[in-house]
Amino acid sequence: MTTHSPSFKTPELDFAFEARVDIAPSEHVGHAGGPVLGFTPITGGTVRGPRLNGEVVDGGGDWAVDRPGVAVDLDARYLIRADDGALIDVVNRGFWVASPEVDAAAESGERVDPARYYFRTQPVFRTDAPEHTWLTHTVFVGMAYDDADLRQIRIEFFEVR
Amino acid sequence: MTTHSPSFKTPELDFAFEARVDIAPSEHVGHAGGPVLGFTPITGGTVRGPRLNGEVVDGGGDWAVDRPGVAVDLDARYLIRADDGALIDVVNRGFWVASPEVDAAAESGERVDPARYYFRTQPVFRTDAPEHTWLTHTVFVGMAYDDADLRQIRIEFFEVR
Amino acid sequence: MTTHSPSFKTPELDFAFEARVDIAPSEHVGHAGGPVLGFTPITGGTVRGPRLNGEVVDGGGDWAVDRPGVAVDLDARYLIRADDGALIDVVNRGFWVASPEVDAAAESGERVDPARYYFRTQPVFRTDAPEHTWLTHTVFVGMAYDDADLRQIRIEFFEVR
Amino acid sequence: MTTHSPSFKTPELDFAFEARVDIAPSEHVGHAGGPVLGFTPITGGTVRGPRLNGEVVDGGGDWAVDRPGVAVDLDARYLIRADDGALIDVVNRGFWVASPEVDAAAESGERVDPARYYFRTQPVFRTDAPEHTWLTHTVFVGMAYDDADLRQIRIEFFEVR
Repeated sequence: MTTHSPSFKTPELDFAFEARVDIAPSEHVGHAGGPVLGFTPITGGTVRGPRLNGEVVDGGGDWAVDRPGVAVDLDARYLIRADDGALIDVVNRGFWVASPEVDAAAESGERVDPARYYFRTQPVFRTDAPEHTWLTHTVFVGMAYDDADLRQIRIEFFEVR
Repeated sequence: MTTHSPSFKTPELDFAFEARVDIAPSEHVGHAGGPVLGFTPITGGTVRGPRLNGEVVDGGGDWAVDRPGVAVDLDARYLIRADDGALIDVVNRGFWVASPEVDAAAESGERVDPARYYFRTQPVFRTDAPEHTWLTHTVFVGMAYDDADLRQIRIEFFEVR
Repeated sequence: MTTHSPSFKTPELDFAFEARVDIAPSEHVGHAGGPVLGFTPITGGTVRGPRLNGEVVDGGGDWAVDRPGVAVDLDARYLIRADDGALIDVVNRGFWVASPEVDAAAESGERVDPARYYFRTQPVFRTDAPEHTWLTHTVFVGMAYDDADLRQIRIEFFEVR
Repeated sequence: MTTHSPSFKTPELDFAFEARVDIAPSEHVGHAGGPVLGFTPITGGTVRGPRLNGEVVDGGGDWAVDRPGVAVDLDARYLIRADDGALIDVVNRGFWVASPEVDAAAESGERVDPARYYFRTQPVFRTDAPEHTWLTHTVFVGMAYDDADLRQIRIEFFEVR
């Protein structure tokens, strides 16, 4: 009787900014009896875009958990220092999904066509700098790319309107 | 020298399914010295759409934290039982953002035009039912609506392609 | 040159209260490619002791993740309603560690001598009821027992002084 | 009718190891409308004791949330590299509770008698190095001290038997 067709149109996404996150080589941590935890240190980077400009603070990293044959669950935590000096905390969870061939190529440092993997995130931001408060109550989608040549992860953040 | 314009086009979103979540009245929990925690029990509901059909299991709820004047941070946890019997765990974090007037109207049980609030979520799913595995490695955006007449929260889940 | 012997004496633990948590049968959820998630619904219970008395609210449950051969990681979330009416949120993480034989006995509903398993937790409480605020800034240790005859989990909470 | 007296004796605690964590000055992040988030970078340190020896890896930090007049909620995340080369992930949540006078003294870099504050934690460890697997299924209590003279936090970890 009730209809469950979507009542509202597809959400609109607006490009907000891009982060280029410098990373150091990943290290194996593991988790006894459970999925393998890996840690990728974050060493710096830049943030540029219409809504936010600044730098990625050295420190933090990505605590990634492997689910073999399915996905790697990402859990990146770091800080952005905006050009106006404000400090913004980032928790960026998401997924890396690729075939074993693509995984092997990426791990060997090869640059892989982004069309060959699925690398998306659900970021959450914290800050009380008035200029940037909107980040803390907005849902974003992160479209991420592995820029192997530069040892960078690039993430384009889109605001869900 | 480096350009930071987005290299890839805006992500595409596909409607996957809608959940109609039945709720009981919210209760005040609080958190000493910190933001107020409220709990809204989840008592059932339905899931319908091109990618998933089933029911919301009675139990769980939304652990919501109020940041006055800014947003309510949502943290809903519950289970979906798919029509094929599979059990799917949902953790659905997000934001409710509205003016004090809209907040007051919504709290009094009035139906409010969804254009007057921002109610979006970042769901994460867990299951090992092969049919539904894709949910566990896909980023979604939840567009939520307060269907006060029916004591339901409606959430339309869009897959980020 | 520096010495790393403990400078302070072993922490003292004080018994605060016991929760007897009624549970329904666990259900398999799983997590594709990762460790198996199980869900155990919580249906009620009682809380008694020198520092807190009340009841366990029907709803919530334990989201438990299996690491075969090592431990089950527990993540229980529920509410306590104190005798004075205050609502207290509980997040109770911990471990169940036992041999395969003990696991099998416990799963079959047999009562097992608690000396044969390790079942300990790290609870966190939230509330703003002044009488119970101390719970929100105190570290506790939970000593848990599977009271299979009564379909109850018993947890004795000890305050770390 | 039922008695709720504790059936089992007070848990025993065994000293396992001490971490001396080097920290850089804390920075204000905030969280709009909510409690203030602060970040304290972790820059290194040592781990010594009967059960674990190694070093604290530079990186990570403590994401601390202030609940004024009640407590500071701590959420430290970092890595330990054991002397045998194994990498161990640490998530160490806990509380700092002190009077405004003690808070002011500690913030000014003064060494404060540990009897004047409550600084306790609930650590969780992840690793798959066989030698250290026991850390991943054991509940610990952390007794922490602010060693202001050395810009170190000292944490004594006690195993809950």
